[in-house]
This record gives sequence, C-alpha cells and structure tokens, in this order.
Amino acid sequence: MLAFMQYSTNRNIIFVAMRGNSFGQVFKLQTFGESHGSAIGGIIDGMPAGVQLNLEEVQLELDKRRPGQSSITTQRKEKDQVQFLSGIFEGKTMGTPIGFIIANEDQKSKDYSHIKDAYRPSHADYTYDAKFGDRDYRGGGRSSARETACRVVAGALAKQVLKPLGIEFNTYVSQVENIRLLTPPDKIDFNLIESSIVRCPDASVANQMIERVHSVRKAGDTVGGVVSAYITGIPSGLGEPVFDRLHADIGKAMLSINAVKGFDYGSGFLAATMRGSQHNDEFVKKEGIISTKTNYSGGIQGGISNGLPIYFRVAFKPVATVLQDQQTIDNKGNTVDLKGKGRHDPCVVPRAVPIVEAMAAMVILDHYLRNKSAKID
Amino acid sequence: MLAFMQYSTNRNIIFVAMRGNSFGQVFKLQTFGESHGSAIGGIIDGMPAGVQLNLEEVQLELDKRRPGQSSITTQRKEKDQVQFLSGIFEGKTMGTPIGFIIANEDQKSKDYSHIKDAYRPSHADYTYDAKFGDRDYRGGGRSSARETACRVVAGALAKQVLKPLGIEFNTYVSQVENIRLLTPPDKIDFNLIESSIVRCPDASVANQMIERVHSVRKAGDTVGGVVSAYITGIPSGLGEPVFDRLHADIGKAMLSINAVKGFDYGSGFLAATMRGSQHNDEFVKKEGIISTKTNYSGGIQGGISNGLPIYFRVAFKPVATVLQDQQTIDNKGNTVDLKGKGRHDPCVVPRAVPIVEAMAAMVILDHYLRNKSAKID
Amino acid sequence: MLAFMQYSTNRNIIFVAMRGNSFGQVFKLQTFGESHGSAIGGIIDGMPAGVQLNLEEVQLELDKRRPGQSSITTQRKEKDQVQFLSGIFEGKTMGTPIGFIIANEDQKSKDYSHIKDAYRPSHADYTYDAKFGDRDYRGGGRSSARETACRVVAGALAKQVLKPLGIEFNTYVSQVENIRLLTPPDKIDFNLIESSIVRCPDASVANQMIERVHSVRKAGDTVGGVVSAYITGIPSGLGEPVFDRLHADIGKAMLSINAVKGFDYGSGFLAATMRGSQHNDEFVKKEGIISTKTNYSGGIQGGISNGLPIYFRVAFKPVATVLQDQQTIDNKGNTVDLKGKGRHDPCVVPRAVPIVEAMAAMVILDHYLRNKSAKID
Amino acid sequence: MLAFMQYSTNRNIIFVAMRGNSFGQVFKLQTFGESHGSAIGGIIDGMPAGVQLNLEEVQLELDKRRPGQSSITTQRKEKDQVQFLSGIFEGKTMGTPIGFIIANEDQKSKDYSHIKDAYRPSHADYTYDAKFGDRDYRGGGRSSARETACRVVAGALAKQVLKPLGIEFNTYVSQVENIRLLTPPDKIDFNLIESSIVRCPDASVANQMIERVHSVRKAGDTVGGVVSAYITGIPSGLGEPVFDRLHADIGKAMLSINAVKGFDYGSGFLAATMRGSQHNDEFVKKEGIISTKTNYSGGIQGGISNGLPIYFRVAFKPVATVLQDQQTIDNKGNTVDLKGKGRHDPCVVPRAVPIVEAMAAMVILDHYLRNKSAKID
Repeated sequence: MLAFMQYSTNRNIIFVAMRGNSFGQVFKLQTFGESHGSAIGGIIDGMPAGVQLNLEEVQLELDKRRPGQSSITTQRKEKDQVQFLSGIFEGKTMGTPIGFIIANEDQKSKDYSHIKDAYRPSHADYTYDAKFGDRDYRGGGRSSARETACRVVAGALAKQVLKPLGIEFNTYVSQVENIRLLTPPDKIDFNLIESSIVRCPDASVANQMIERVHSVRKAGDTVGGVVSAYITGIPSGLGEPVFDRLHADIGKAMLSINAVKGFDYGSGFLAATMRGSQHNDEFVKKEGIISTKTNYSGGIQGGISNGLPIYFRVAFKPVATVLQDQQTIDNKGNTVDLKGKGRHDPCVVPRAVPIVEAMAAMVILDHYLRNKSAKID
Repeated sequence: MLAFMQYSTNRNIIFVAMRGNSFGQVFKLQTFGESHGSAIGGIIDGMPAGVQLNLEEVQLELDKRRPGQSSITTQRKEKDQVQFLSGIFEGKTMGTPIGFIIANEDQKSKDYSHIKDAYRPSHADYTYDAKFGDRDYRGGGRSSARETACRVVAGALAKQVLKPLGIEFNTYVSQVENIRLLTPPDKIDFNLIESSIVRCPDASVANQMIERVHSVRKAGDTVGGVVSAYITGIPSGLGEPVFDRLHADIGKAMLSINAVKGFDYGSGFLAATMRGSQHNDEFVKKEGIISTKTNYSGGIQGGISNGLPIYFRVAFKPVATVLQDQQTIDNKGNTVDLKGKGRHDPCVVPRAVPIVEAMAAMVILDHYLRNKSAKID
Repeated sequence: MLAFMQYSTNRNIIFVAMRGNSFGQVFKLQTFGESHGSAIGGIIDGMPAGVQLNLEEVQLELDKRRPGQSSITTQRKEKDQVQFLSGIFEGKTMGTPIGFIIANEDQKSKDYSHIKDAYRPSHADYTYDAKFGDRDYRGGGRSSARETACRVVAGALAKQVLKPLGIEFNTYVSQVENIRLLTPPDKIDFNLIESSIVRCPDASVANQMIERVHSVRKAGDTVGGVVSAYITGIPSGLGEPVFDRLHADIGKAMLSINAVKGFDYGSGFLAATMRGSQHNDEFVKKEGIISTKTNYSGGIQGGISNGLPIYFRVAFKPVATVLQDQQTIDNKGNTVDLKGKGRHDPCVVPRAVPIVEAMAAMVILDHYLRNKSAKID
Repeated sequence: MLAFMQYSTNRNIIFVAMRGNSFGQVFKLQTFGESHGSAIGGIIDGMPAGVQLNLEEVQLELDKRRPGQSSITTQRKEKDQVQFLSGIFEGKTMGTPIGFIIANEDQKSKDYSHIKDAYRPSHADYTYDAKFGDRDYRGGGRSSARETACRVVAGALAKQVLKPLGIEFNTYVSQVENIRLLTPPDKIDFNLIESSIVRCPDASVANQMIERVHSVRKAGDTVGGVVSAYITGIPSGLGEPVFDRLHADIGKAMLSINAVKGFDYGSGFLAATMRGSQHNDEFVKKEGIISTKTNYSGGIQGGISNGLPIYFRVAFKPVATVLQDQQTIDNKGNTVDLKGKGRHDPCVVPRAVPIVEAMAAMVILDHYLRNKSAKID
C-alpha cells in the first residue's frame, strides 16, 4: 500500500476551489448545510411555472428517508420537516427559485467530542481535513448523508412534474449482502415495495433481508446492498451526446450519493460476458407498434432514451460506523482508540431507496427540459 | 416489453435542445465532428500556460486508438493525424484555447446506403432520428466512436501536465467475455500492458483473450469486456462534494464513452456483499508515514482523494455491428433485412484502453485545477 | 410604436425555461425569494475555507441598503437581519456552502390588491405575466429590488476575502438628475462617502442632491442618477478573454441590478469622441516602478486588469412607482386607473451604492479565484 | 497614478485559470485562434436541428467585417473564408456541433519583430504577459480583434434561425468622434445602412463621418465612435431574472468585443437625468392591441422583453495603434521607442457593425432557446 501524500498542517492557509454543490443544467438543485448546524436546505432553480404542487407528498418522500422509521434503520429521531420559503404562491409554482430549509433537531454535539481529532476509518474525516484545512466534526458535518434529504425534496418536486407525463419510478432494494432478488424487473409487482420495511418487493426475499440486517446489527456490524430502479414512460429522445448521455448523467447522480461504489444500467457488467448476436435488441413490429424483442440496452441507445423502460443498479458499501472498537490515528498522527458507539444504520439501502429515486427523477426532468427547449414553432 | 413512444414523422419540425458536447469545468474539452464529414476536432480551454508539450506523444496515444492497428481490431485504415491550430507557440502552451482537427480519410459513403433508412439493432440510429429529426447516416455520423479520438488528444495533453506532478495512469484490459485477469492491481507489472495487442498485462491471460477474439471474429460475432485503471500519485484533496465527487465525475466520464454499460471503483459491486468490519480501511502509521491497511475505498473517501491509488472498472458491451444478417425495421416502420458487412471491431476493449485513460486524465486534471484555485497568498 | 406580441391567456400552460438566478463561476451566489414571501435568501458556493469572518460588518452593509434609513429613502421599515445557516463554524468559513436567509417582516399583502391584475407602467408586471403565466403580485414579488439584499450579503463576504489582499472598493453617488460630481475619482476623499445620506463624497454637491430629492418627493415624483465606483489594489492578470473580460463581467453584474440602464468604464462613452493619440495610456517608469501617464483604460486592457485603479459608472432610471395617478391596462386588456400610493424611494441611487459595491466585489473575487486556479507548483 | 502591481518575471511558472472562451448557455459558441497562427475557428453547440442554411449569407456577413473592404478601413487584405467541418448535412443542420475554421492568410510574422518585447500603449501586450507569462506577440495573437470573425459566423447562423420568427436586426454607426446621427431609431430607414461605407443610414451624416475618418487617417491618428442597434419582432418573455436579464446578457456580449468602453439601452445614461413621471412608459390600447406610448424601457422591463423594439448603444474607443512614434517600455522595464507603422483601421466602428449584430443575435437566440425550453405538453 502506498503512502498518503503528506498534507499541510499549516492551519493559516486559506483553501479555495471551484466547489460542486449544485446539480443539473435546467432543473438545478443547489444545497447547503452541515448535519449539526441549525438547518440544511437548498434552492431549486428551473422549476416550471404553473405546476400545482402537493406538498404533503414531498413530506411523504422525506419520511421514507427519515431516520428512526423502522427496526432496521438507525434509532436516531429526526422529523425532517421541510419548510418552503419561496417560489410557490397559492399552491402553484411561479417559475421563480424555490428556497427551502429543513431544521436540524438532533444536535447533540457532545456526542462527537471523541472524534474531534480522530480520523474514523472509511469516513471522510481525513479527506475533509486535507481538502478544507479544517471541518465541522460534529456528525460528519457536510460529509454526512443528512444532506441527501435536500435531494429528496427536489426529487419529489421533479416527480410531480413528470407524473402527469406518464413517467413512473419504481425503486427497490434488490440485494442485501448475498441475498438477492432475482426476479427480472419487468416481472416485479412494484406495489409491494412499501409492504416491507426493507423495501424489497418480494415478501420472502424481503424477510430474509430483514433477518440478515437484524443479525448484523446484533453483531455490532453493518452490511452493504444494492438498490435497483425501473423507470417507465420515458419518451424517446432524452439524453445529450456525446458527453451528457442520459445514462452518464444518471450514473453521476447515483455515484454522488454517499456510500455508492458502483453503477450499471441495462445489461450492465453482465454485458462484458456477452456476444453481440445475443446482446443486440432486435426491432420488431407488433400490431403497428415498434418495439424490441429484448431490452439489454436498458432503454438507452447512443446515450438517448428510446422509449423503453430504463433500469439500473446502484451498489452501496456497508456503513463505515460499526459498533466495534477500532484503532486509528488522529490529526497529529498519533494512534488512538475509537469506541464504537452511537445510533447508526446497520444497512443503508432501505433508506437509500428514496434518495436513488429522487436523483433519478431530477436527471430525467433535467433532460426532459433540456430536450424540451425543443421545437421552434 | 413495452411499446416505444411514437415519434413524430413530421420532418418540418425544428429540434432544439441544450446540447452536451463539452466536458469539464476548468480543463474543458468541446468536440465536433461526424465520422464521415471532412474532419472531427475540438477545442481545449483551460490548458495551463507555459507547459512545454511533446506533440509526438499525443500522436502515440492516438495510434493506440487507431483502427487497423492489429489483427484483433477493425481492418479499416485511418491515420488519425492530429493537427493543432492554436494555443501553442514555440512548443509551449499559451493559456489560450487549443483548437485541433483530425481529417476524416476513410469516407466511403457508398458503404452506408443500405442503412440510410434502416435502424440497426442496438445502434443509435433510431434514437438519433427520434431526437434530431434526421441524421448523418454514414457510419454512425456523430454517434460513431470516431469522436473519441478527440478525447484521446485532450487526455494526452492532460497527462503531460500531470506527469511532472508524479501522477501516473495504468490502464489495461482485465476481461474479455469470461476470461478474467484476477491479479489485484497493486501486484501487476504495468510495463507489460503494451506487450500484447489486447493490452492485458499478463502474457498468458492476454493470449487466451486474443485467441477468443479471433474465434469470435471468425464466427462473425463480437464480444464484450472490461477495462481497468489504476492511478497513482494523486494528491489528497481532489474532488468536490457533494455532487462533483471525484468518483462521480470519473464515472460520468467513463459512462460517456460509447458502449460502456457499467462503472465501479474500489471495492465496487463487491462492496454490496461485504460487512463494515471487513470493508473499513484502517489507518496505520509505519515509519512516520500514515496509510491504510486495505484500500477498499479505492483512494477516494467522501468523494475526495486520500492520496492512495485510485482504481476502477469499466464494462463494455459487445459491438453492435455483427457480420450476421439481422431483421429490423426502417424509418417508415417496414420490416427490412440487414446484411452483416463492413470492417468492424470484434471486441472494442483493446482500442478502448487509451480512451478510458484519456477521460480519466481529463477528470483528474480538471479536479486538480479546480482545487488548485487554492491557497490565497 | 409597434404592438406587443400577444401572449397566451391560457393559464393551464406550464412555463419552462433555463432560469438565471445564480451568478459567478467559482465564487457563486444563488438567490431565492419574493418580496412578500416568508423569507429571501441565498447560497454562496465557492467561499474559500479558513477565512475568519466578521458578521457584524455584513450587517452594516445590509444597513446601508435597508429601507427607512434616512429622509431621502422609502419610509418602509424592514430590519433586514441576515441569519447564516451553514458553512461557518467557530467563526471561520469551512469551504462548504454558506446558506443564509433574511426574513420578510413587512408583509402587508392587502396593500397590493389594487395591482393584482393591473400592469404598473415600467414595472415588470406585464413581462412576468407574459413569461411565467402568473406572478406573485404582492410588492413586485420576485421582480422587487428586495432580492438585492442577498447580493449585499455575498458581496460583504467577498470584500472580507479581498481586503487583506489590499483590494479596496469606493462606491458613491456621482449624479442625481442633472447635479453631477465633477471631481475625477483619483482626487476624491472617499472617507466622506458616508458623511452624507446621499453618499456623495462632496458636501456641497451632496447637499444639492439631497435638496433635489426632497423636492422631487414632495412633487410625488422620482428621479434617476448615477453611481460610480473606484477600485484600487487589483493585481494585474484578472479577467478571462475573449468573452469573460473583467469589464464585461462587471458590466453584466451592474446591468443585472434593478433599474440600471447603462454602464461604462474608464473613458467610457467619452472615448467615442476621442483620438487614439490622446486616449492611449503611455507607459512610464518612475523610480523603478512602471505605470501609465493616464488611465483612460480604467485599469483594464484586453479585458485583463493591469494593476491600476478600475473605475466605472452605472446609470439608474427614476423609480417607476410615482405618487401620481396613472392610467394603465389590466391582464384582461381593460383600461384601469392606478392610484399612486405606498412608501417608495424618490431616488434609488443612495441605497444602490452598497448593491453596486457588492456586485463589483463578487466579480473581482470570482475572477481572483478563477485566475488563482493558477500556478502549478 | 498608482503603480502597477509587479508581476513575476519567472518564466518557469505555469499559469492556470478557468478560461472564458465560450459564450452562451443553450446556443453556445466556443472560439479558438491567434491572429497569426494557422487558423482561427470555433464550435457552435446548441444549434437547432433541421434548419435549412444559406451559407453564402454567412460569408456576406464576414465580408462586412473583412479588412480591406473600403477606403476607411485597414488596407490589410484577408479573404476570411469560412469552412464548415461538421454539423451540417445536405444543407441542413443536424443538431450536432458545428465546427468551422477560417484560415489565416496574412501571416507576415516579420512585421511584428519590433513589438516582440515592447508593450504597445493601450494594447493587451502587458496584461497578456502578466496573466499568461508569455504571449504570441505576432499581431496581438489571441488579443487581436481577428477573433471576432468567429463571432460573426455564429451570429450569422443565429440570424438564420431568428429571421423566420420575424426577428430583425438593424445595426448602424450612430457616432464618429463628435459627429452624431440624431434621428431616433424608429424614424430611420435601415435600408440605407449598407449604402455608405461607414454604415450610417443617413447620407449626409455618413459623408461627414467618412471625411472625418479620412482626415484622421491622414493625421496618422485614429478615432472612436458609437454603434447602435434596433431589434424588432422580439416576442415578450425573453430574459431570465434575476441575473441573466436580457439586457445584462446583451451588455456583457457587447462589452466582450474589443475596444468597447460602454453600453446602454433604452433611455440609457439619459435616464439618470429624468423623472419617473416622464420616463414611465404608459400602457395604451389601440384597436385591440396593447402597446406603450413611449419606449424608454427599450423593449425590456424587469430584464424580460415586452415585445417592443429593443435598442441600445455601444461605445468604441479609438484604435490604439496610431501611425505616430510613441515611447513605451519593454518586458525588462527598459524605455523603448515604438515606430508607428503597419496597416490599421483609423476608425473601428464600420467594421464593428457586423460584430455587434452577431453578438446581439447570439444573445437573442440563446434566450429564445432558454425560454423555449418552455411549455410542457
């Protein structure tokens, strides 16, 4: 293993960079907030004007991401109540930016004194220090996944624009450790997703997953998993070659979520083992409608949607915070003992489902609007 | 399988969108060109001023991507000679945009009359028609991977800025169909990459791969594979949370390459099957230098580089053009027969190696410069 | 006078666009908020990490823009208290986005019923309706200059980064109607700016301006003016040809402020009447230091700062709300009478001074950081 | 006059920045090229697909900017022949990027040896050295106005999209030194613009201007002027508050042109001297059509077009190259004599007319397309 680059310990330096806290080109989200500041929040710019909103539905999406929602998530409680400050008037969007905040209620800063100087393994403590010169160490600060609540808000609004267009999102847990849902997505009854707390739309597999998470938690450990999505009703023509291919932007969206390690779509990594004669999606015409026999392309060809369902997988690593003691080093380079304590998720994927769905909805709406800058009449 | 959205056959409509032909924030590449127009090319903006360039090395990178380079690539011949038009003066960069073109020599337009109206399976013919209303059907036009030659030019220049900083790229073929190189990247002798025409740095595995490609070609078929990369010498601190994480931008870069179906980094999809206690990279101090015992993080934590090697995998589907007859439909919805003919790659991964490396170099330099907007003095 | 384009009265249409509520490339401000919603606010991304902030100074800048501050501004009262929600920890910036809000206190919505449907002359009522299909009519909604308070916050933070670098901003009122301050900027004592409520750094001219504003207000009318700025200590090298010239970005910044009708810098419009032999700034060397005899260039040549003072003028139109009855039309095309009432500024320039200065500071810092992405070491 | 900041004479440093060689958000132009390299050129991304082009008209626009076109321009000859490389197929746009080049024919590098090290007054020689560490000194290199030829190409294409929509551009010279065209734009016969070589649509004023330029040239001097534009047929709704107001983007476009010192629109700087009661554009209804009595707003209110004509003025300084000897300094700080020689424009405004018009067309089309990302159906 190579050595780390030594980073400056000179804390008088000012660290500058072109930051990356906004997402999207036409439908844009910019977020702010540390996990233990007074609030997190964001601004959505590019929301179409004249859309009648259902703000209760936004809160329902947040509730799916909320800590403390079930026996397999962290028992930390946080209401995650979103408050909209602008852009909405008499229930409708005005085309002006939508500002919103979510207050941080669970600000037990004393919980974090033990990690003020220590670098937790596989967290962002060391890299934030190296990059920013200093950090808000309380609960991960900006690197905490708490920030993803803002994405859920934006995604929920995006879905409300897309739904009347017939675009539907189905997002679910397809793997926890080695327990896999093998049913192909076009055979799944997506109405069952919310029937289990693990959000796997197959009762039997879901139960195995839940048991596994319970036993992992009991062992003071954590476990990884996979979230899958299946999106229907996408019109053909979305995606902008050669760089902003639809799947490239979806992939970036997913890889920007905390703990994600991999992304593939359509045939995915399996495609590497296939032959062209087998992988090609042949065009067919049946009762006047053109389609393809197979959909290894995952609804995207040449980076552009073809009207067929888009599906993809997102791999999550196990949560880095384990309830076991670990040895590590601090910001002076001293070896220190790190106690495993606190309330953390034994498995992140059930709560990641609404985040994956939100990011997908944002990308689809963004590309819908980019392409919609269409037809001159 | 669901039906396609019907797309308009009205060819008088004008199709507008916010296009996506540029890449990067500070080190930016904008490309142009169809495979059978007079030339392809691009503009690099944000190249630092005062860099002494070796233009021969740029050409060597292009030669690695060039068609006709070996018995396992397409036998199409194209010199792919890059011509720089600006931004370089007396051998050094001036900080002004670098314009360049690569002439298209192989413009046998008659070859393509048979696909003028037909939609080739798993190509972008249908989606380009749906999106743009029309297309340059000759050899794929803009959707052809020929465009990636421009990326190789920009990546080669990026590498010349990064090399003196100690940043090294090692990119290789790690899988062809079910033949896999199982050696972990830190045990590989990367000097062997160019020893085999398949660019796999293990002679025995490479030979198996080459044989497989030969037999696939003989069968008139194509086959997929995986390209892997291992980058060393990255300073800590690169990557911009929360959206422009280093691996998210690398992932988007890879997914923007033709035929790519998946991307993962570090432990990747395997992370889904692991436990936190096993996956965590423990910090250790040895002879005054801080490092980690393992590197499941793949050199990136919280979206920011930590100074350890970055490694990732890119999955490629089998090339869609097979030398077998296929049935398909044309743009009037009629069923047509498609003859398998022409000179195409039986397996794209050997030629994809320089493209993957170029995109990685562009992302790393872009983030280096974004972060370099650093220290106020 | 040509006729208006007819705009759709169909209120079921959804209006989409790529919006423009953010400013800057590296130091970026995104704002939100309507004048009569619950709050306005913004997010600053790209603020360097490690900067010790003085938040009281930010409030002092807001106080200069605040309504009700003197006898020549609107008598509307609004505290304009900024609340920071993120990005600052223990008094220092963390390099993470700075979210902030300013509560709207003066929400007397009933005041605005008379303009719910009527289009006030030379306001944005008609154009907002045409563009967005609908609008928050209360006090101008998003089109109100209240939004500029967010710019003052961002500009005040920018100045705190620039001040230690020796960059000083001097912004003042140089004209009210036909009363002009004729002193060249390098002869002005800028310490006097805040000595008069009109912010003109010459007591005698200031008094004439104040009298004029009082008499204009008495007549129920409003009056235009000019704000000038003189910036010293700018290092050479800021500004990015060929499009993002330093003065082009300053000009856009100024033209984005409500009521601005013109911008010029250096010799400005006067340059049109000059000859090259007279206008050229000759280089001279005195006591080892290189400078120029004159500074018609206004500190910028070829779009790049040369180290000499930058100066420019910004022309403001008279406020459109007059206390006189006017005839106009409503959104059904009917002629209606508009009563002149409410509390409005008779002359906007005294309160525009901090806004002009804030926008200038944002542009200078943005370009400083863009250029700072400099020297590879 | 204050001293320059000392800039580093260390030529081993590498100079990095986030460059600014692209313009526009949806309709985007990226340019490259130095005046004495092999070619200049650009890429237009975002051009709508399906537009039938007239490439001869593009060349006609270039001819209006071409050197050597008349007795009042530089006598340097350059054909300025544009060559399109991509994005156009069988006469129509394909929605893919349009790459183009214009060869540099007049590459007499020896002409420039005398300015290799000397800083010409009021040119960009010093600032380019300070910013980039070095420069292509031949004929101004990147800082030469030759680069604007690329803008003319993009603007000419933009006009071909806008013309069928009824949008017309009328751009003319309204001032040379103290000779002014006083006719208000709505009374001008724009058919006369091309009747005189100075492009002033009033024969008598035009003749005075031409005489003046002749006498200025004879004196070895140069002179400034003003270009005005009057655009009709703009639909209401273009422009994106709060920062990307239509006039702010037009202003930036103009200020990005070489030698421009000022911009105002509608009532402009005159507005500073007016009262609200006089300046307000009252709405009126005549024969069912709504319009305004006056148009001091210049067709833009709240940053959004209202359907009335947009008009603005652009001030140009006198060309810095005079045929008189001047004293200056070189890059070692030595005083040197600069001979006035070469072939240069005595007055830049006649050739600036197509550049102003091109930039205006690009902004209008960009905002048209940004807003066109409209109506969800």
